[in-house]
Amino acid sequence: MQFSLDISAAPHGSLQSKIHFAIRDAISRRLLPPDTRLPSSRDLADTLNVSRNTVIGAYAKLSVEGYIVSRHGVGIFVARELPEDCLSTVSTSDHTPAAPIAVAKTPTIEFVGEKPNLFEKGRELPAIDFWAGRSSRRSFPIRTWQRLITQCLGSASRSLVEYPPVAGLPELRQAIAAEILVTRGIICDWQNILVTAGAQEAFTIISKLFIRPGSTAVVESPSYQGVSYILTANGAHLIPTAVEREGISVTEVERIRSASLLCLTPSHQFPTGETISAENRARLLEWAAKAGAYIVEDDYDSEFRYENAPITAIAGMDMGRQQVLYVGTFSKSIGAGLRIGYLVLPDRVVQAASVVKSHLNLGNPWLEQAVLAEFILSGQYRTHLRRLRQEQRRSRDILIASLEEDFGRLDLRGTDAGMHMYWRLPPTFPNVKAISAAARELDIGIYSPAMAGAEEFGRGDNAIVLGYPALSHNEICEGVRRLKTAIESLG
Amino acid sequence: MQFSLDISAAPHGSLQSKIHFAIRDAISRRLLPPDTRLPSSRDLADTLNVSRNTVIGAYAKLSVEGYIVSRHGVGIFVARELPEDCLSTVSTSDHTPAAPIAVAKTPTIEFVGEKPNLFEKGRELPAIDFWAGRSSRRSFPIRTWQRLITQCLGSASRSLVEYPPVAGLPELRQAIAAEILVTRGIICDWQNILVTAGAQEAFTIISKLFIRPGSTAVVESPSYQGVSYILTANGAHLIPTAVEREGISVTEVERIRSASLLCLTPSHQFPTGETISAENRARLLEWAAKAGAYIVEDDYDSEFRYENAPITAIAGMDMGRQQVLYVGTFSKSIGAGLRIGYLVLPDRVVQAASVVKSHLNLGNPWLEQAVLAEFILSGQYRTHLRRLRQEQRRSRDILIASLEEDFGRLDLRGTDAGMHMYWRLPPTFPNVKAISAAARELDIGIYSPAMAGAEEFGRGDNAIVLGYPALSHNEICEGVRRLKTAIESLG
Repeated sequence: MQFSLDISAAPHGSLQSKIHFAIRDAISRRLLPPDTRLPSSRDLADTLNVSRNTVIGAYAKLSVEGYIVSRHGVGIFVARELPEDCLSTVSTSDHTPAAPIAVAKTPTIEFVGEKPNLFEKGRELPAIDFWAGRSSRRSFPIRTWQRLITQCLGSASRSLVEYPPVAGLPELRQAIAAEILVTRGIICDWQNILVTAGAQEAFTIISKLFIRPGSTAVVESPSYQGVSYILTANGAHLIPTAVEREGISVTEVERIRSASLLCLTPSHQFPTGETISAENRARLLEWAAKAGAYIVEDDYDSEFRYENAPITAIAGMDMGRQQVLYVGTFSKSIGAGLRIGYLVLPDRVVQAASVVKSHLNLGNPWLEQAVLAEFILSGQYRTHLRRLRQEQRRSRDILIASLEEDFGRLDLRGTDAGMHMYWRLPPTFPNVKAISAAARELDIGIYSPAMAGAEEFGRGDNAIVLGYPALSHNEICEGVRRLKTAIESLG
Repeated sequence: MQFSLDISAAPHGSLQSKIHFAIRDAISRRLLPPDTRLPSSRDLADTLNVSRNTVIGAYAKLSVEGYIVSRHGVGIFVARELPEDCLSTVSTSDHTPAAPIAVAKTPTIEFVGEKPNLFEKGRELPAIDFWAGRSSRRSFPIRTWQRLITQCLGSASRSLVEYPPVAGLPELRQAIAAEILVTRGIICDWQNILVTAGAQEAFTIISKLFIRPGSTAVVESPSYQGVSYILTANGAHLIPTAVEREGISVTEVERIRSASLLCLTPSHQFPTGETISAENRARLLEWAAKAGAYIVEDDYDSEFRYENAPITAIAGMDMGRQQVLYVGTFSKSIGAGLRIGYLVLPDRVVQAASVVKSHLNLGNPWLEQAVLAEFILSGQYRTHLRRLRQEQRRSRDILIASLEEDFGRLDLRGTDAGMHMYWRLPPTFPNVKAISAAARELDIGIYSPAMAGAEEFGRGDNAIVLGYPALSHNEICEGVRRLKTAIESLG
């Protein structure tokens, strides 16, 4: 809640007692929590345009009363333990009760939308957590990162005080263009690349560009909440289309006459983990041309392919027709804390997308972009990816072996790639929600597709989404053992 | 433009000749610009799932032809100078022309909006540039910043790989809450603070929350394009309201029956530089309660007050009614390259705003937030601001003195605060566009309100917006001298 420190709002009395009152009131109401650093007497005097002695007097009184403590040479802080009688010391004659909150008329909130289920730092975590999509913090190249930051900061004052280019640093866009040529078969001009605040912002930009109330978007069923929620919030009409063994059902898609967008996760479908074959990619491109749709190719997890060669991105197969909006992210391959992703855009969309980005936030922060560009251009990104791929393949093997040891033959999907696998439970198994709750009792995190961030459109599998790169090998084995115990406990 | 590196698209021949063709074609068409680093033969072989020798053979041929160069121990790069006959060496029998671009049917771009005029790093700049709102790069606390980064990175791997909290790091929000209590008289719970990607994202979030097509927003005339453009793009009906000597005309506002938003820059109106008096702030709050509107208080430049004490923010005067959406930014007080701002929100808006933020980008990057929190909590932000305020006051004095020396008495506004002043030119002076063009000839940047990012709603003053903190004292004096020459040259 907000109220004023405007000292004229305090009761009658000297300036000093008004300041004293206002601060004590804020402390009593815990608006200034214990240990909060208070301004120096000089700063507060400047701000309130009163003499410094007035503030010193007020602080002295608060200190005697036990509301604040002065740590010599460090500063003035709200006391850790407040006087027990902090409210009753305020005699009625000295106290104006806070004005009752007059709930005023305000505009209605027009926005209707849901927050995707998301792993956020600070959440209370089980000891062993199979959350999907978390990278391993042990694998983060922290020393290299630190060295590159120091290198970039060398001559950086200018870059830190000024607005970075809205569409992203040219050196980063060039580095990305060179990278996706090799790894995804996409050849594009660097100016067709727009740096975004993660893949999520890419979806926002696409929605702003192509969705108005009633627009049609074809999405995978199940699909990623981060996409479906934002499309819905922008008024799109969704056509959920079943995911089969090779990803979205192409036959079903081909029955749809027209749509604005077809949203896909071709490398490692979220959450089922399936991969769309080269042949089906070509068919989907053909459909898009006929239907007048853009394919939104969310190519997350494409860096991690453990069997066979990676399949060329749909954007790489789109010979000059420019029917694809390609979404890339560094959240999985480096870290989500960077908030960097990118869009590869057809010529006719580049300009408008950059205007949308300017409306959203005028561009990404400079430092992460500069460091990432250097990381890619120096070749260290590739080295990092190669190591990560090896580590994750090993973790994957251990997870599969542990599961098979404890549960026998399984219907495991999405094991060829990515950072999670999808386990369709046998019909004899309890419901995944019950399993998740029982697992939590044993301090492990087990998630259904919906809990893991999937929109299921009502046809939910009884399945578990198992993320593994963030776990050690021991944690994986121990986690699977406890999962078995949890399931058995449900009889 | 996009096309495929898919080697099956290349003409008949061996795998090696297909790879050779695809890369040479990309180089010839400058899709791989000179000096681009190519993947190692091992990487490319992995990607294409061919033997390494095949790639080495293709690279060898390209190298002999002069398309690529190998720098020993560094890597393989596209040659700086391409073979002059790069296209004619492709014999017809060996060459499949690139498929003609079949412009396919695609969805219409639904987004209609303009990009605000903006100072972007990388723009071609005049030697002396009076662009408004740029901070001084000499004043950026680069050493402190570097030290704090090192300190924060110490135990940071986890924070870098995981999603930061959507609403911002708690320590940063607490630091901001403590700071605005002192400097702006706003007492709020830290959980009412949402960290944003600059003030621009705050405007986006507000628009998403409260604007639907036809909603009414009262804006200052002239006002900041970054606000008016995004309101318009979201379908708002704007009521531009004249700015007078003390900011927006309160009498005019009071005639408006109802509106969703009233958007203000009370500390230092953009672009005119006026400050809204405490009395008028109270009247505007009362109007908002009656009209059922939120006041959007864009409090940019509030850190820099050179005469009198700062006036309490409107959000600080809003005794519990919670009628204000307060927008703060660190773009001016530290640097725009950080892309950090914040919103102080009424209780009833907090939850929905955080969902909007999750749709936009799932939160700000971690590092800038962690460093900024430390910078504020350690007291170094206050020290930095105090120094900046002194430096900018001195620059302001020199700019005023130079202008008065060269032009006599002037109608200068907004000199009491902020980072720019507003000079209404006398009727005898040429048009500011002509002045700006003549000044550019003399290598100085002079900007009209519109060029500087103001929406004038058709009633443009013949005025110059003069930013000064980024200039040295000599540059200010020399710039004013050249401005005089430019004006005189127009006769």
